[in-house]
Amino acid sequence: MSKIHFDFPAAGRFFAGSLAGKWQGDVQRAHDGLHRGTGQGQDFLGWLEPLSPDSEEVAQIEQTADRIRQQADVLLVIGIGGSYSGARAGIELLTPSHFKPFRKRKTNAPHVYFLGHNLSASYIVQILSNLDDQEVAVNVISKSGTTIEPALAFRIVRDWLIKRYGAKEAAMRIVATTDQFKGALLRFAEVEGYRTLVIPAHVGGRYSVLTAVGLLPMCVAGLDIRELLRGAQDASVRYATPDVTQNHCYQYAVWRNELYRQGRVIELLAAYEPAFAGFAEWWKQLFGESEGKNGKGIFPASVQFSTDLHSLGQYVQEGPRHLFETVLWVEDTGCEVLVPAVDGDLDGLNYLAGKGLTFVNEKAWLGTIEAHESGAVPNLLLQIGKLDERHVGHLFYFFEKACALSGYLLGVNPFDQPGVEAYKQNMFKLLGKPGRSE
Amino acid sequence: MSKIHFDFPAAGRFFAGSLAGKWQGDVQRAHDGLHRGTGQGQDFLGWLEPLSPDSEEVAQIEQTADRIRQQADVLLVIGIGGSYSGARAGIELLTPSHFKPFRKRKTNAPHVYFLGHNLSASYIVQILSNLDDQEVAVNVISKSGTTIEPALAFRIVRDWLIKRYGAKEAAMRIVATTDQFKGALLRFAEVEGYRTLVIPAHVGGRYSVLTAVGLLPMCVAGLDIRELLRGAQDASVRYATPDVTQNHCYQYAVWRNELYRQGRVIELLAAYEPAFAGFAEWWKQLFGESEGKNGKGIFPASVQFSTDLHSLGQYVQEGPRHLFETVLWVEDTGCEVLVPAVDGDLDGLNYLAGKGLTFVNEKAWLGTIEAHESGAVPNLLLQIGKLDERHVGHLFYFFEKACALSGYLLGVNPFDQPGVEAYKQNMFKLLGKPGRSE
Repeated sequence: MSKIHFDFPAAGRFFAGSLAGKWQGDVQRAHDGLHRGTGQGQDFLGWLEPLSPDSEEVAQIEQTADRIRQQADVLLVIGIGGSYSGARAGIELLTPSHFKPFRKRKTNAPHVYFLGHNLSASYIVQILSNLDDQEVAVNVISKSGTTIEPALAFRIVRDWLIKRYGAKEAAMRIVATTDQFKGALLRFAEVEGYRTLVIPAHVGGRYSVLTAVGLLPMCVAGLDIRELLRGAQDASVRYATPDVTQNHCYQYAVWRNELYRQGRVIELLAAYEPAFAGFAEWWKQLFGESEGKNGKGIFPASVQFSTDLHSLGQYVQEGPRHLFETVLWVEDTGCEVLVPAVDGDLDGLNYLAGKGLTFVNEKAWLGTIEAHESGAVPNLLLQIGKLDERHVGHLFYFFEKACALSGYLLGVNPFDQPGVEAYKQNMFKLLGKPGRSE
Repeated sequence: MSKIHFDFPAAGRFFAGSLAGKWQGDVQRAHDGLHRGTGQGQDFLGWLEPLSPDSEEVAQIEQTADRIRQQADVLLVIGIGGSYSGARAGIELLTPSHFKPFRKRKTNAPHVYFLGHNLSASYIVQILSNLDDQEVAVNVISKSGTTIEPALAFRIVRDWLIKRYGAKEAAMRIVATTDQFKGALLRFAEVEGYRTLVIPAHVGGRYSVLTAVGLLPMCVAGLDIRELLRGAQDASVRYATPDVTQNHCYQYAVWRNELYRQGRVIELLAAYEPAFAGFAEWWKQLFGESEGKNGKGIFPASVQFSTDLHSLGQYVQEGPRHLFETVLWVEDTGCEVLVPAVDGDLDGLNYLAGKGLTFVNEKAWLGTIEAHESGAVPNLLLQIGKLDERHVGHLFYFFEKACALSGYLLGVNPFDQPGVEAYKQNMFKLLGKPGRSE
C-alpha cells in the first residue's frame, strides 16, 4: 500500500475559519462534474479510472517492452508535451538517471533518450552521432502524427534507422503509440508495418502518463508498471470521497484556490531530492496548461532544495509575498551516507560526524518550512512514504485529480489547451505550409 | 569579436513615450554608483573589470587545469550557489553535456560532476559508487568552508579519496578554491597541503563565474577561458556608456523595471536550445538573489522552447497578464540537420523536405514572439551571434551588469543576500550545532 500525506502546518495564519465549510459546496459540485461527467471537458475523463494492472493492455505493453529490451541498448522516445514528460518523470525518479554512463551496466535495461520535444538540430545530432556501437529501438508517440516537433524528429530518426538497418528491420524496431482509428502516425504504422499501442481517445496528453504513452518507456527502463498502476488505484480509492475534511487531494486543490484568491499567484513546487526535476516539469505542464486560461491561473514554478535556497531562496524569504510553496518530502529514500569525522575538526562540523546526510536534509527541510512561514510564505506539505513505483503511481494520480478539481474550482476547463494553437498558426504561415487557411 | 543584440519589437505597445527620457536620470545615478563605487554593496564590484586573459592568474588556472586533465578522467566539483552554477552553465552550453557516456571519448577532457549543492544521500552515493574504473580529481569551492552542503560533501568525498588513494595522493588530487587569507577551507588546504586558487574578496558568489570559481572547472572541461574573458572584455567596453540609447545592457535593465512597475511580476527566460537549461539556473540565481528583497523583485523563471510551448505555453498565451519574456536566440548554432522526404507524404510534411531543422526552429521563434505579443505579453529579445566561448563570456557579463544596474533602479542592494541566513539558523538549531547563539 502506498502512503501520501497532505498537511498545511501554518494554516491558521492564512485562513482563520473552516476552509472545508467555505469550500465544501463548490467541491461537491466539482466532484460531481468529474464523477458524473457533467463538467467541462467531460470527453477527457478516461484517466479517472486507472488501467487495471491485470488487464490485457498492460500485458501487451509488457510484451512490447520485453521485445525492445531484447532488441536494443537504447530506446529513442519521440514525443512532446504529455507524450514525453510523464515517462521522463517516472524514469528519473526511479532509476539513477543522472549518471547515464553507468545505467545499462547496473540495471540491464536500455537507456531511454527523449527526442522530438524541441527543434534543436544540435540536440538530435548529438544523440544520433553517438549511437554507433549501440542497438537502437524507437517509440514514437503522437495522437495525430502531425505535431511538427515529433513528426520532424521521427522523419530524421526513421531515415537514420533505415540507412542503418534497412527498411524492413527498421520497421521492426519502431513502435508507434497513437490514436486507435485515425491520424498520420497510424497511417505511417499501417503502411510500414510498425507495432502500435493505443492512446485512449478520452485521455488528454498531460493526463496520459499511466496509459501506454508513459507506461511503455517506463517499462522498457525497468520500472514495474503494474505497481505504478496499483499506486494509482490506491489513490483513486483514497480520493473518491467528496468530503473535503477526508480527502487530502481535494484539500490541496482547495488550498491552492484559497491562496490564489488571496493574491498568491505563483506556486513553487519544492523537492529535496534532485531526482524530482523531471517530475516538476510534468507537474508544471499539468497545472500550467490546465489552469492558465481565461486570464486566470496560478503560475507553476519549481525549485530544488536545498540547492535553490542559495538561489531563489533569497526571493522566497524576502521578495514580494505573492507566492506559496508545495513541498515534497520523501520519508524513506532507501539511501544513506554518513558524515565522517575529521582530525582537528578543521571545518567545525565534527558535531555531525556519524550522522547521516538524510538526517541533515530533514533538518534543512524543517528549518526551511519554519523560515519561509515566518516570512509569510504559506507551505503546503506532501509527505511521500518512499520512492518506489507504487508511491510514484499514487503521486501521479494525486496531482491529476487535484488538478482537475482545482480547475473546476477556478472556473476553467482543465482539459483543453486552446492557447497552444496560436504559435503554431504563426509558424505554419512563416513556413509556407500548403493549404493553410488564412 | 562577440556580438549580442538587444531588441524590443513591440515596445510601443507597452510604453508609448521615450523610455530613455523617462529613465536616463535614474540610470545615470545607478551607473555612477557602480563605476564610482558609491552605491550599495560597493565592496562587491570586483567583477566589473574582467580578469585579463593574459594575467598571471589565468595562466595559473590553466596550469592547474592541465594537471587535473593529466591526473583524472572525472573532476568532482564541490560547491553550491554561485560556486557551481556558472561553471555548470558554461560547460553545458559549450560541450555536448547531455550525452555523458560519450563526452570523454569525443573531447578528451574529463567529465565534470557537480556535488555538494544538495543534501541528497542518493545523489552523492550514485556518483561515488560509479567511479570504480575512473581516475578522480576534486575541486572544492567555498569562501568560508563551512557552508553545510559543500562542507559535508567534501568530508564524504575526501574520506572516499583517502581510502582509495591514501592521504598523500588524495591531497595531490584536491584543489581548493577559497578565500586568500582566512576560513575553514583555507585551513584545511594548509594543513593537508592542497593546491589553492583564490576567490577574490570583492566578488560575491553569483558574480563569480569569470573568476577562478568558474574558470577552473570550465578550463578542465576543455573550454578556452581566455576567450571567455575576451568576451567579457568586449562587453565591459560595449556597456560602459551611461547613455541608455546606446547601451543595450542598460536598455534591458530599464525595460525590466518599467514592465515591473506595470505589474509584470514574472520574467520568463526563454531559449530555443536545450543546452541553455543550466544557464537559466545561473540567471535565476543572479536576478532572484540580487533583487528579491525588501518585499520587491521580479520572479525569475525559465522555459525551454519549443518544448514548453506544449506546457507553460498555454499559460503564457491566455493566463494572467502579469509576465513578460526575455528570449535568447542564437543566430548561428553551427549545426544543422535536414528534413528527409517521405514517400507518399504520410504526415503531410514533405513541404519541409530538404529544409533544415534550424530553419523550422527560427520560424517557431518568430511565430511565438508574434503569438505572445498579440496575447499582450511583452517580449524582450537577446540575439547572440554564435555559441562559442567569446559570446558566452559576453553573455555572462551582459547579465551581471544588467542585474547590478537593475537592482539599483529597483532601489535594492544587488550584492547582498540577507534572507539566505534564515533557513540556516533554523537548521543549525535543529541540528544542535554547538556554540550557536540563541
